[in-house]
Amino acid sequence: MRFLHTADWHLGRVFHARSLLEDQAWMLDQFVALVRERRPDAVLIAGDVYDRAVPPPEAVALLDDVLARIVADAGIPVVMIAGNHDSAQRLGFGARLLTAQGLHVAGITERDATCVTLSDAHGEVRIYALPYAEPATVRDAFDMEVPGHEAALAARLDAIRASHPAQARSVVVAHAFVIGGEASESERPLSVGGSGAVAASVFDGFDLVALGHLHRPQTFGQRIHYAGSLLKYSLSEVTHAKSVSLIELAADGAVSIEPIALTPRRDLRIVEGQLADLLAQGAADPRRDDYIHAVLTDNGALLDPMARLRQAYPNALAIERAVLARSGEAGAAGQRLRQLDTGELFANFFKEVADEALDDDKRRVLDQVLEGIARADRESA
Amino acid sequence: MRFLHTADWHLGRVFHARSLLEDQAWMLDQFVALVRERRPDAVLIAGDVYDRAVPPPEAVALLDDVLARIVADAGIPVVMIAGNHDSAQRLGFGARLLTAQGLHVAGITERDATCVTLSDAHGEVRIYALPYAEPATVRDAFDMEVPGHEAALAARLDAIRASHPAQARSVVVAHAFVIGGEASESERPLSVGGSGAVAASVFDGFDLVALGHLHRPQTFGQRIHYAGSLLKYSLSEVTHAKSVSLIELAADGAVSIEPIALTPRRDLRIVEGQLADLLAQGAADPRRDDYIHAVLTDNGALLDPMARLRQAYPNALAIERAVLARSGEAGAAGQRLRQLDTGELFANFFKEVADEALDDDKRRVLDQVLEGIARADRESA
Repeated sequence: MRFLHTADWHLGRVFHARSLLEDQAWMLDQFVALVRERRPDAVLIAGDVYDRAVPPPEAVALLDDVLARIVADAGIPVVMIAGNHDSAQRLGFGARLLTAQGLHVAGITERDATCVTLSDAHGEVRIYALPYAEPATVRDAFDMEVPGHEAALAARLDAIRASHPAQARSVVVAHAFVIGGEASESERPLSVGGSGAVAASVFDGFDLVALGHLHRPQTFGQRIHYAGSLLKYSLSEVTHAKSVSLIELAADGAVSIEPIALTPRRDLRIVEGQLADLLAQGAADPRRDDYIHAVLTDNGALLDPMARLRQAYPNALAIERAVLARSGEAGAAGQRLRQLDTGELFANFFKEVADEALDDDKRRVLDQVLEGIARADRESA
Repeated sequence: MRFLHTADWHLGRVFHARSLLEDQAWMLDQFVALVRERRPDAVLIAGDVYDRAVPPPEAVALLDDVLARIVADAGIPVVMIAGNHDSAQRLGFGARLLTAQGLHVAGITERDATCVTLSDAHGEVRIYALPYAEPATVRDAFDMEVPGHEAALAARLDAIRASHPAQARSVVVAHAFVIGGEASESERPLSVGGSGAVAASVFDGFDLVALGHLHRPQTFGQRIHYAGSLLKYSLSEVTHAKSVSLIELAADGAVSIEPIALTPRRDLRIVEGQLADLLAQGAADPRRDDYIHAVLTDNGALLDPMARLRQAYPNALAIERAVLARSGEAGAAGQRLRQLDTGELFANFFKEVADEALDDDKRRVLDQVLEGIARADRESA
């Protein structure tokens, strides 16, 4: 059985004040063409379909169009889950009716996971769709204590194992941070305080685990796979080779994964040099329309360098002055500060004003408050 | 052929800082039961399904549940359009796929109107679903000049007439303000400057016109019908008898309409008297949980009257002091000001500072600006 696995479309994302919707539509046109050409048994979309709980209406229209072309026009079923950027309720609208058409959307987390059963010559394959859920949501759905993300996911997977027929192959579609995975700057942390990760072993026993959340394509133990994001959504992803994944699930449950690269309308690149050199280089650059992050090595003052850079690279997004970045302690301290999360920043601040460290109890209260804020932020509309 | 016609649910509406979602769910439970009991050939929902373009997630979940119970469980098709409070793109998500299940949603306005064809022993009935659209949207879709709402709706109806087969009966589901209709305070004006109304004659030739927008149930010429809103959404509706409408469309196209009242969880009522009397009366009132607007006739100062009133009427929403309302010029001027729309207020302000009246050209520019703001407001997320 064959799947096309993709994730982290982040439709509606704004990057350096620019909407990426046209770039996303450009990629998804290729994705739809690929679906029509390769005709997988199902398309798996592993969460963060939208960039935020309330996406712009144009992003809603784009997703509607893409799904209709895959499900109605090409006749290929889709299994799609909500990620931590999506609103479970909004993404799940119409799910009960849509499932009869072959669009299986898992938004709200319920005790009984959404299960889609497909068959090939070798028998049944059960696809379990597990939308992203906070531990508190899982606690409510299962009426049991789950201290964190790993326990929550383990509880949901245990419930599936208890009813999964031994002879059927199994696929899990989920949205999670597997310990050891390589993160990027555009992923929103699943948990304040760093307890959001889960051990790969929670997925023991399932034949294929098709994940979303991490933006670089990566695989654990040949069967736990992140397809990666649709586009480069942060500078930290500039070296990523983005792709979607064609996955073959053999009769014995063995998995083989073929990454298929789609071509972005505009790549995200770093160029480095003196402004004058970059202007000359850009004029002759066949990919001058790319999104450009320029590292300028000039030492002196520069008059409106962005306006000048955009004459050569019209879609230049940002300029970094190498001389400033290198200028000693202040720059390095700023860099270190930017890498701290809110909890660490607050802990430093507390130490500064109270002259004592934040103890474990206080830190726990702080984390709960920050979690609450993050949750309210996600759910607010 | 029989229809259950309803409109203006305004799911997610907040009234005096209280969410009405539980009241709405209460009414819709009765509505679903009515659908199951009467089994109409279709349910018609004529717009303003949500109260705003981005409804709270709980409102999305409620609509999802109600539609699944009607369409999937009871097997009754639904024709639903976007009103001026809804986001066309958001409400229209999944429409292409949902239509195969019997849920026909018209969100975005296109040249070819959504048409649902049903049949009975007397032949075909075509139901045309016309979502609310700004004149500018119709101009784009039809590539023709439409100076206002009436011309826009006329253009859309003309296009339908041109292809409607003469022998079939016709139903239009639309969201509009018909001239002569009685408005309420909870309807958002369709147009700044008052040109949003349409003559009833634009609907000439159609057998049944099932409308939304006006919140009082009302009928023009026995076939143009407003079902009215689900609940009383403003004080001006306190005397309304809210209902849904069971409509019989006979073989010859004749229409008969039966209003069916649903029972609100809490009615909206005005009580008037001295505070002490109201407290005594409330204690014995079997409907003391109703939403209460109290007109207090006491003359002197009262200490925290709302807290005291809520001991008798726990869901009291507002207090009006009759003595203040009657106290001369200031109160009357304030009352008059509150009845002016933004355009009139601005015109008064302009006259005050510029010492000349706003001429027609300036007024037109102002109206365009206000329209733009209102539109951006509706579409923003």
